Amino acid sequence: MEGCYSPQARNTVHRHRERAKYDFKTVHSIVNASPILHVSFLPTHPDDDPFPTTLPMIGYMGSFDGPSTGALDVYLHGHSASRVMRLAGNHKSEGIPVCIAATLLDGIKLSLTPFNNSCNYRSVVLHGYATVVTAEEEKEWALRLITDGLVPGCWDNSRVPPTRAENLSTSVLRVHVASTSAKINQGGPSDDRKDLQDDEVTSRVWTGTLPVWESIGTPIPSITNKVAQAPKYVLQWRQNRNAENESYARQSVEKGK
Amino acid sequence: MEGCYSPQARNTVHRHRERAKYDFKTVHSIVNASPILHVSFLPTHPDDDPFPTTLPMIGYMGSFDGPSTGALDVYLHGHSASRVMRLAGNHKSEGIPVCIAATLLDGIKLSLTPFNNSCNYRSVVLHGYATVVTAEEEKEWALRLITDGLVPGCWDNSRVPPTRAENLSTSVLRVHVASTSAKINQGGPSDDRKDLQDDEVTSRVWTGTLPVWESIGTPIPSITNKVAQAPKYVLQWRQNRNAENESYARQSVEKGK
Repeated sequence: MEGCYSPQARNTVHRHRERAKYDFKTVHSIVNASPILHVSFLPTHPDDDPFPTTLPMIGYMGSFDGPSTGALDVYLHGHSASRVMRLAGNHKSEGIPVCIAATLLDGIKLSLTPFNNSCNYRSVVLHGYATVVTAEEEKEWALRLITDGLVPGCWDNSRVPPTRAENLSTSVLRVHVASTSAKINQGGPSDDRKDLQDDEVTSRVWTGTLPVWESIGTPIPSITNKVAQAPKYVLQWRQNRNAENESYARQSVEKGK
Repeated sequence: MEGCYSPQARNTVHRHRERAKYDFKTVHSIVNASPILHVSFLPTHPDDDPFPTTLPMIGYMGSFDGPSTGALDVYLHGHSASRVMRLAGNHKSEGIPVCIAATLLDGIKLSLTPFNNSCNYRSVVLHGYATVVTAEEEKEWALRLITDGLVPGCWDNSRVPPTRAENLSTSVLRVHVASTSAKINQGGPSDDRKDLQDDEVTSRVWTGTLPVWESIGTPIPSITNKVAQAPKYVLQWRQNRNAENESYARQSVEKGK
């Protein structure tokens, strides 16, 4: 799984080039660690309505044919009647052009000046063509990928396979990556020499990082639940995920120093 | 501060209308609780490069002229040389059309079937016209708004005002809202009657909600920091924010029941 997505003009990072990554592993790990992906598409009638639209969606990267080059597609699911699914479904050629953004906030860095404040983060901006998956086998594979992408083990621990009605009302988009880049910021805040040499400022203004991560709380059973204990796959995943998230946020401060 | 943004065709919620909100208070509170906003804009040369682009940015809603109708603008900051700032700066008319998405994930809901899995969330999708703020007074006001929007009190506890060089290299975008809508999902998972009546399924599959919220960890001083204790405004904000975030995620499960 080594190799890189080819950078194109549209997503070559110009500012803070040292933070840019184009390798498969970095891109896939950031997208797949993001519970929410922001998917943008163009206006259908630009003369009447000039705005792009961005929607929060659930998705995961994978390759139905198996990893050959190492590049993966993004699979997204949604209601069959939703606008993005109708747009992509009506498109006859290579698909509709979309942009997918995945962003993980890892810390807030406070400097001597607001100007030098910044964040630790991992982000991916990905451009590609979205088409609706029509082959039954690929669709079920993708639904399992997305379901287990959110909480691993969920598919096998639920009532599957989907019924015919469920299959009809859920659609899956496959986004073939045209180009993508990741950007990672780590470390503590930085300041200008002039501020660092000003004793009045340094004696008064605290500088440092507030690590930020996503916490998953203790499971709350539904009113119709009949199983005594939350299942092991959920509890174990919650524990690992919380530990990894917290540890990444804290360690990223050290790493970039 | 009562009143609503006028829904337009582009952002009228059709699926799960009961989750849609258009009032000022809901929209502003979701955008301002989101540390990261995803800002999308159209391709500049659609024939060569057909993709929209989405960037993670920091921003906050406010009104420089004071709230008259109750509607607010979104202020975003970025490096003056960044693409979106150059695009908006070169635009002579009402500004460039953008879409801003703010999404807070509050819970993962596990149902009897993957098909009925869903999330608790608060989201806003906002369309508007972005222009670069040129008036000095509005720009400094906006930088303070955005700085204190991330960590309240930060501006007054830092070295301010910005120097001339700092002012030149930071730009502020003002996005005038054309239309917007919020969507809120709360409660526990729901299931189809057929699955709920199937004892084999209900005795085997746990259903419930994993509350999710953003945690802020203990402050980590920078290597150049000379102030003994992290300041009260940081510690107090961290404590309140963690308590509010956790409490919202847990209570949203109950609220929607």
